[in-house]
Amino acid sequence: MKVNNKHYHTIWVHEKDPEIIQIIDQRHLPHEFLIEDLSSVEQVALAIKEMHVRGAGLIGVTAAYGMYLATLQAQKSGSFEKDIQEAAEALKSTRPTAVNLFWAVDKQLKAISHASSVQEKIGTALKTANEIAKQDMQNCKKIGEHGLKIIEQLSKEKKGEAVNILTHCNAGWLGFVDYGSASAPIYAAAEKGIKIQVWVDETRPRNQGSRLTAWELHHQGVPHTIIPDSVGGHLMQNGLVDMVIVGSDRTTYTGDVANKIGTYLKALAAKDNDIPFYVALPSSTFDWTIRDGVKNIPIEQRSDEEVKYIHGLHEGKTRRILVGNEQSKAANYAFDVTPARLISGLITERGVCKADENSILDLFAEHKR
Amino acid sequence: MKVNNKHYHTIWVHEKDPEIIQIIDQRHLPHEFLIEDLSSVEQVALAIKEMHVRGAGLIGVTAAYGMYLATLQAQKSGSFEKDIQEAAEALKSTRPTAVNLFWAVDKQLKAISHASSVQEKIGTALKTANEIAKQDMQNCKKIGEHGLKIIEQLSKEKKGEAVNILTHCNAGWLGFVDYGSASAPIYAAAEKGIKIQVWVDETRPRNQGSRLTAWELHHQGVPHTIIPDSVGGHLMQNGLVDMVIVGSDRTTYTGDVANKIGTYLKALAAKDNDIPFYVALPSSTFDWTIRDGVKNIPIEQRSDEEVKYIHGLHEGKTRRILVGNEQSKAANYAFDVTPARLISGLITERGVCKADENSILDLFAEHKR
Repeated sequence: MKVNNKHYHTIWVHEKDPEIIQIIDQRHLPHEFLIEDLSSVEQVALAIKEMHVRGAGLIGVTAAYGMYLATLQAQKSGSFEKDIQEAAEALKSTRPTAVNLFWAVDKQLKAISHASSVQEKIGTALKTANEIAKQDMQNCKKIGEHGLKIIEQLSKEKKGEAVNILTHCNAGWLGFVDYGSASAPIYAAAEKGIKIQVWVDETRPRNQGSRLTAWELHHQGVPHTIIPDSVGGHLMQNGLVDMVIVGSDRTTYTGDVANKIGTYLKALAAKDNDIPFYVALPSSTFDWTIRDGVKNIPIEQRSDEEVKYIHGLHEGKTRRILVGNEQSKAANYAFDVTPARLISGLITERGVCKADENSILDLFAEHKR
Repeated sequence: MKVNNKHYHTIWVHEKDPEIIQIIDQRHLPHEFLIEDLSSVEQVALAIKEMHVRGAGLIGVTAAYGMYLATLQAQKSGSFEKDIQEAAEALKSTRPTAVNLFWAVDKQLKAISHASSVQEKIGTALKTANEIAKQDMQNCKKIGEHGLKIIEQLSKEKKGEAVNILTHCNAGWLGFVDYGSASAPIYAAAEKGIKIQVWVDETRPRNQGSRLTAWELHHQGVPHTIIPDSVGGHLMQNGLVDMVIVGSDRTTYTGDVANKIGTYLKALAAKDNDIPFYVALPSSTFDWTIRDGVKNIPIEQRSDEEVKYIHGLHEGKTRRILVGNEQSKAANYAFDVTPARLISGLITERGVCKADENSILDLFAEHKR
């Protein structure tokens, strides 16, 4: 998507040096647009853990490129297989909730194991990472096409009045390679000239909504308004939201969705006010092994400093301020699980389906057992 | 309650000069504890509007003292009646949602009109303000006694294990003259040695939870943990919340509750997880004229700067930082309405009742029509 009218992806291979992966370091947005070079699996693991990159799709793609960098490092070590296994473990241990990470690393392990020579393994790893990135883009584009139909229908029902869409966190292009999941239908609608307005949950504690989603929408010229995370319920009660679209970090095959903390509360409010609540996700976000999301999806807990301190701009410089009472403890659960019963539909690259086992397995029949 | 082991109220008449009202200027907490002198109705109106003082009870009491200061100012003007009416209008126009403000100003207008001479009116206004302040404290103390029984029962059911209580915003002693509403049962339980743990919603955008409630609980030695506003649902889903207690800015006689934005979302989550959701309020918070809270309680909208910028401490100085995308708009609805159907009970100074018209009017029979 566009940044100051120039097209960017969130991750790419360095144009002149194929042994360097470049990313947009998202910690500095929206105040600074910085590109970071990654040239080792350790740097990639840190970039994922410390959220230089984040979002279900993008951490998968980044980990895939991390595995490629691991093959480059391992060729010099003499213990190639062991190094590759360790790299896979290191990448998988960065973040526990989003399943794309595990999916991408496992895909790489398989691809690398099928190649014979070390040189061939390196080539395969790069090719696989590029394919995963390309597939991520294609899937998001498809999600946009399928989701667009829902927005078009709402626009028709509202006789062309702006469709008000609420979103939580950033499931935008910054969370993928391009287009995004929840944002893809929004960008598709905007491109088609459908009148929309996006309510952007600021998404505490790391403010991915006000920092990233708002920045994205601003650069694509989509009308939007930042709101504190507590506001959505009031807006829904008062007819100011026509639909909710969020992303997913892990979706059970029964339709439960782990997504950024607070998603569950918005789903409850949507249900209470009879407002459609959609989850947009590429199929790499499905976990085909878990039946009960609330009980069995591991929820990441991050540092309490992310709650107590906030980064922002003060007189042109980024500063970190203490907001509340210094001596108090804080808890920082990064995700919650929205039960399938609260979800109107899942928007996937293959189409829209209900959030239940039968509908999901009808669309992804290869996972039927 | 205690601040560094010294007892304070949130508002009082200056010890040496009865023409000055002193308040804790809550904008600076928890980083600075500052006392502000108020000596005119204009200063009082500004202090309420700009939230030097806030909270249903305290803005009522502050407005009552504002009316007293108005009588002092009016005695020199030659247009006493007109000035008093204008002062009443100015105070009432500071904030639209909390009803205690209107209740307190009207109570003063009536009292002042019943006195004959200007000197008598001044004396009556001071006396009435002191009475409103005293009643506020007594009511909060009673709310503490009634609410304590609910916590005791939960503690018994948990065989003495810590009772986990979630609260939103600040309905603590800082929102009243002393004790608080939602906090009164918590302080009563702590004083009785009942094991409790309080989940403190940080309460964006002004962070009254992390700034004020956490500070209060810290100074009273009550175990607590700050959480982003999005976290409560996850905690409730996972058995980590035994009850919710919040305050109210306006309660219809049918039991709908206007309280800090986000309260509705917590009530939905409590309902979905079968967790008791209580609202603590002195009866001055009832609106005896409104039947449908969602439709008819006016919801204050404040400056979008409160959403986009956050105050906090940086290297010993209070600074204001820009968090998100500068060019984006923001919306700032200060309250939402929780429908009576989501509320387990109202804790008032006369006892606990269900959130419905019959139960409320049984307890406050003088308002039956």
